[in-house]
Amino acid sequence: MRQYETFELSFDGATLNDQWASVDVTAVFTDQSGSKTVKGFYAGDGVYKVRYMPETVGEVSWKVSGVVSGEGKEICEPAAEDRHGIVRANGVHLMNADGSWFFSFGTTVYGLAHQDKEITEQTFDTLSKNPFNKVRMCVFPKHYDYNVNDPEYFPFEVNAGMTYTYDRGNTFNDSPFLSEKAKYWNVNQPCFAFWDAFEEKIKRLDDMGIQVDLILFHPYDRWGFSYLSAEQNRIYLEYLISRLAAFPNIWWSLANEYDICADKSQEDWYQIEECVAANDPYHHLLSNHNCFDIWDFSRENITHCSLQKRTMTLVPEMMEKYHKPVLYDECVYEGNVKQTWGSLNGEEMTNRFWKVTVHGGYCTHGEVYLDMDMENIDDAVLWWAKGGKLIGTSPARIAYLRNLMEEIGQPLVPYEGPMAFVFKPDLPKEVEDNLPDSLKSMRRSIKRMDKVDLVRHHDQETFFAGHAGEDTYLFYYGTDCCARVDINLPKDHTYKIEVIDAWNMTRETFTTGASGDLEVKLTGRPYMAVLATRES
Amino acid sequence: MRQYETFELSFDGATLNDQWASVDVTAVFTDQSGSKTVKGFYAGDGVYKVRYMPETVGEVSWKVSGVVSGEGKEICEPAAEDRHGIVRANGVHLMNADGSWFFSFGTTVYGLAHQDKEITEQTFDTLSKNPFNKVRMCVFPKHYDYNVNDPEYFPFEVNAGMTYTYDRGNTFNDSPFLSEKAKYWNVNQPCFAFWDAFEEKIKRLDDMGIQVDLILFHPYDRWGFSYLSAEQNRIYLEYLISRLAAFPNIWWSLANEYDICADKSQEDWYQIEECVAANDPYHHLLSNHNCFDIWDFSRENITHCSLQKRTMTLVPEMMEKYHKPVLYDECVYEGNVKQTWGSLNGEEMTNRFWKVTVHGGYCTHGEVYLDMDMENIDDAVLWWAKGGKLIGTSPARIAYLRNLMEEIGQPLVPYEGPMAFVFKPDLPKEVEDNLPDSLKSMRRSIKRMDKVDLVRHHDQETFFAGHAGEDTYLFYYGTDCCARVDINLPKDHTYKIEVIDAWNMTRETFTTGASGDLEVKLTGRPYMAVLATRES
Repeated sequence: MRQYETFELSFDGATLNDQWASVDVTAVFTDQSGSKTVKGFYAGDGVYKVRYMPETVGEVSWKVSGVVSGEGKEICEPAAEDRHGIVRANGVHLMNADGSWFFSFGTTVYGLAHQDKEITEQTFDTLSKNPFNKVRMCVFPKHYDYNVNDPEYFPFEVNAGMTYTYDRGNTFNDSPFLSEKAKYWNVNQPCFAFWDAFEEKIKRLDDMGIQVDLILFHPYDRWGFSYLSAEQNRIYLEYLISRLAAFPNIWWSLANEYDICADKSQEDWYQIEECVAANDPYHHLLSNHNCFDIWDFSRENITHCSLQKRTMTLVPEMMEKYHKPVLYDECVYEGNVKQTWGSLNGEEMTNRFWKVTVHGGYCTHGEVYLDMDMENIDDAVLWWAKGGKLIGTSPARIAYLRNLMEEIGQPLVPYEGPMAFVFKPDLPKEVEDNLPDSLKSMRRSIKRMDKVDLVRHHDQETFFAGHAGEDTYLFYYGTDCCARVDINLPKDHTYKIEVIDAWNMTRETFTTGASGDLEVKLTGRPYMAVLATRES
Repeated sequence: MRQYETFELSFDGATLNDQWASVDVTAVFTDQSGSKTVKGFYAGDGVYKVRYMPETVGEVSWKVSGVVSGEGKEICEPAAEDRHGIVRANGVHLMNADGSWFFSFGTTVYGLAHQDKEITEQTFDTLSKNPFNKVRMCVFPKHYDYNVNDPEYFPFEVNAGMTYTYDRGNTFNDSPFLSEKAKYWNVNQPCFAFWDAFEEKIKRLDDMGIQVDLILFHPYDRWGFSYLSAEQNRIYLEYLISRLAAFPNIWWSLANEYDICADKSQEDWYQIEECVAANDPYHHLLSNHNCFDIWDFSRENITHCSLQKRTMTLVPEMMEKYHKPVLYDECVYEGNVKQTWGSLNGEEMTNRFWKVTVHGGYCTHGEVYLDMDMENIDDAVLWWAKGGKLIGTSPARIAYLRNLMEEIGQPLVPYEGPMAFVFKPDLPKEVEDNLPDSLKSMRRSIKRMDKVDLVRHHDQETFFAGHAGEDTYLFYYGTDCCARVDINLPKDHTYKIEVIDAWNMTRETFTTGASGDLEVKLTGRPYMAVLATRES
C-alpha cells in the first residue's frame, strides 16, 4: 500500500448471473487519522473487489464484511515523489493532498474512453507531450456532430432477449426515440469489459499526473443513457463510485450541460448530486457544468464553480459570490468548425487562458480542427471528441503559462487596479463625499447607469491582473496593443519587473528595484503581460 | 445661389464696439416649398451677414430686416453633381437631401480647428486620401494628454483689462481653477479671426464631401469654456448657429462626454439641446455623446443615437428602442497608448466597423499611435487630437467596407438568424408550446437565467449579419475562424454568394444561383464575411 495510490483487495465468492451492480460488500479502513467505510463491487467471474485510497502514511488495518469478508493490515509507504494525492479546494484555489498547489490546465476529450486502440494510443501520446493536467471525459458515449461512432463496449449489458444495433438519427433530446432506446440497458449488469478498460485509462492518466474530470451524464445521446430512470441512475452511480472513488485523480462532473438534459429536472439533479456526495468517502471535487444557466455553486456538496461561459470576466465575481475555486470548463474551443463554439484561433484560446489564470481561476482547453477539404465529417477525428493529435497553436502557449504559474508557485487572486472603485454601484458615503472633482462627475454619471449597462461596461473594462499577496503581481493586457503601461506596486518593497509576450513566449527583464508607481515599456503588440516579483 | 450650397448676403451697417454676438438681423427666405426665417450675425468691421442653405431649385425671394435690411430674388440652380445636401435621419438610417443614402464612415480629430497651418494642411491632405466622410471635431480647444497646445485664436475675445496667459495644470474638472478661468472670456465679443478660420475649414470639408459632427461642449478644458454660465452658453450657441447653420455638412453634437462635464446638470443639457434645436431652421442632425451614461435618445430633438460604448452588439437593441439611426461615435481607437481607449490594433478597429456596419449602424474611427521612443509626449501629433498623418492599418479596410456598402447601395437592418428567437426572455405561448424537444430543454434553462446573464450571453453570441429586404444579405464572422459556415436565404430567389476577407480585402465568388439553406466554404481565418446578392 502506498500513499495516494489505489489499493485493491480481491476476494472470491459466488458467481452472479444477474443483479451484479449492487452487492453487499463493505470495508472499513482505519489509519492514524481515523476510519473510512468504503463499498466493494462485483468484478465478474465470482470476483469481488474492494478499493481504497490511502492518504496517511503508516499502519492501515482493514476489515471487509458482507458476501465476502476478511481482515488485515498494511503499511502505507510514503508517496512516490511524483504522486501528490487527491486535489481538493482550498479557499478559492486547488491544492493537492500533499499541500502543494494544483494549477489546473485542463483539456477536453469527451469520448476518450470510447475510441479504438489506435486513436486512444495517439491520444495518450499527445497528452504526454502537452501541458494539460486535467481532462474532461464522459462515461457514456457521445452522439453529436463529429461524434457518431459506437464504442467497443457500453457501460451496461443489453437486456436479455434484446440485440443492440446501430441506430443513427437526429436524436438530440428526442423523447420518444430515447425513451425507447433506454429500455435496452440492464443497469444491474455493468459491462465488466467496459469498466476494466475505462479504469485502465483513468489509471494511465493518474500515472501521467492528469486529473479526470469525469462527466457522469450528458444530453448528446442516441442510446438512451440520458433517459434512464432515477433508480437506474442510482444503481449506475453507486457501482461507478464503488469502482472509481479510490482513484486519486477522479473529479465528479455531474454532467456536461446538465441544464439541457431533457429528461432530468432540477430535483433529479439534486438527487444525483446527493447520491454522488453520499457515496464518495473521499470527497473528490464535485461540480456540475452548464450549457446556459449555471448550477447553484453555493450548494454544500459543490466544491467549485464549473462554468461554460464566453464572458471571460467572471472569476472575481464568482470568487466573491461562492468563495470556491472558479474553473472555466468551457470557454469554447480552438478550431475551425462552423459552430461558434469551435472557431477560436490559437491566439484567442491563449488569450482566454491568460485572462482566467491571472485572475486566479482555471481554464480548460479543447480543439476542433476539421480538415478543410474533408467531405464526410463523420470520419473526422477532432481532439475534443475523440482525441488523436493536437494541431492547434494554443497548447504550446498554455504550457508556457503553466510553467510560469508553477514558477510563481502561489495562486493568484484578482487585482482590480486603483480606479476600479469608481465603477462600483455603491460607495461608502465618506468615500463618495471626498472624491476629487474629476471623479465626482464620473460618479454622477455612473450612478445613473442601469445594472445591465454597468455590467457591460465592467465586462469591457475589466483589468486582467492578479497578485499573490505583495510577493507577485501579474498584469495582462490581452488584445490591448499598448506601447507603455502604468503599473502600481506597493511602496514598501522592491520588485523585479519582467515583460512577457504571452504569444511569442518571450520574457525580458525591464528593470529591477522598482517600487510604487512606474511606467513600463511594452511592445505595441497584443498579448503582453508584466510580471512584478518582490525582491526584498 | 445653388442648391445645397451656402448662400451669403452681406450688408454694411454700424460698427459695434461691444455686444456684437447678438444683433437684430432677421431674414425670411421663401421658395416653392415655403418660407424659412434665419438670423443674421455681425461679422466685424461694420459688416452684417445673413446665410441661407437652399434646398429647393427655382426662385427664392428674401427679405432682411433689423439693424440692416433689404430684399431680393435669386434663382437657385440645381445642385452640382458632387453635392448631396444636408444629411438627415430616414427611419434608422441616414439620407442625403437628394434622396441618396448616406453611409457614414466617421473619424475623430477633436482639435482640427486648433492646430498650426502645417499640421492642418497635412490633415486635409490625409482626409483627401482616406475613406472618412464625417469628422468629429470641437469648437473649443481640448486639454488632455497629447493635447496641450494653445490654438492661435479662441472663440471669444478676452475681457477688457485681462490678459490671457498659458496656464497649464492638471485641470480636468477642477472647479475653482476653471471657474476662475471662465472669467477671462467675453462671449459678447466673438473672435472674428477664430470664426472665419473655423468656417473656412468647415467649408473645405464640405467641398470634400465630409460631414462635420461639431462638438459644442466638452470637459477637457483648462481655459474655463466648460464653466461658462447658462446665459453665456446661450449667447455662444445663438451666434454659432447664426453663422454655421447654413453649412449643409454640419451636425450638432451637444458634447463630447456630456455626462462628465462637471459644471452642467441634466437640466442644463436640456436647455442647451432646446437652444440648438430652436435656433436651427434646417434641423441638422443633433445628438449628444456620453462617457458613461448615454443621452436619452428618445427625446424629440434628438435625431440619432450617438454612442460611446465598447460593447459592439448594441445596434439592434438601440434601433428597436429609439427607432433612430445608431452611430458608434466612439468604440475606442486604433493605437498604442497606455490608456485602454487607445490601444486597438488595426484588425480590431476593422472588426468593430464591420460589426456595426452589417447591423446597419455607423461606426467612427480614431487613431492614437505614439512614437515608442518619444520622451516628451506633449510633442506628439496624434490623429485623434490634432490630425496630421494616419499610420494605422484600419483606414484601408474601412475604405474597402465603405466601397462595399456604397456598391450594395441600400442600408442594412439587423438579421438575427433562425435561432435567435430561442434566446428571447419571453416567447408567445403557442411558439413555446410547439417547440421541438431539443429546444424545449434549452428554453427551460434560458428562462431560468437572470437578466444580466442573458445579456452577457447575448453579447457573446450575437450574430453579426444584416440584410436589405430580400435583395442583399451580409454575414460577418468577426474573429470566428470557421472553415465552413451555414447560411439561410429565402427559398424564392436565387443569390450570388461571395466570400469576403475583410482584413485582406479580397472577394471571391463561391457560387451563383444559390437559394435556401447552404454551406459556404470559408478560409479558417478571422474577419471573413459572406455576401449574398439576389440575382432573380
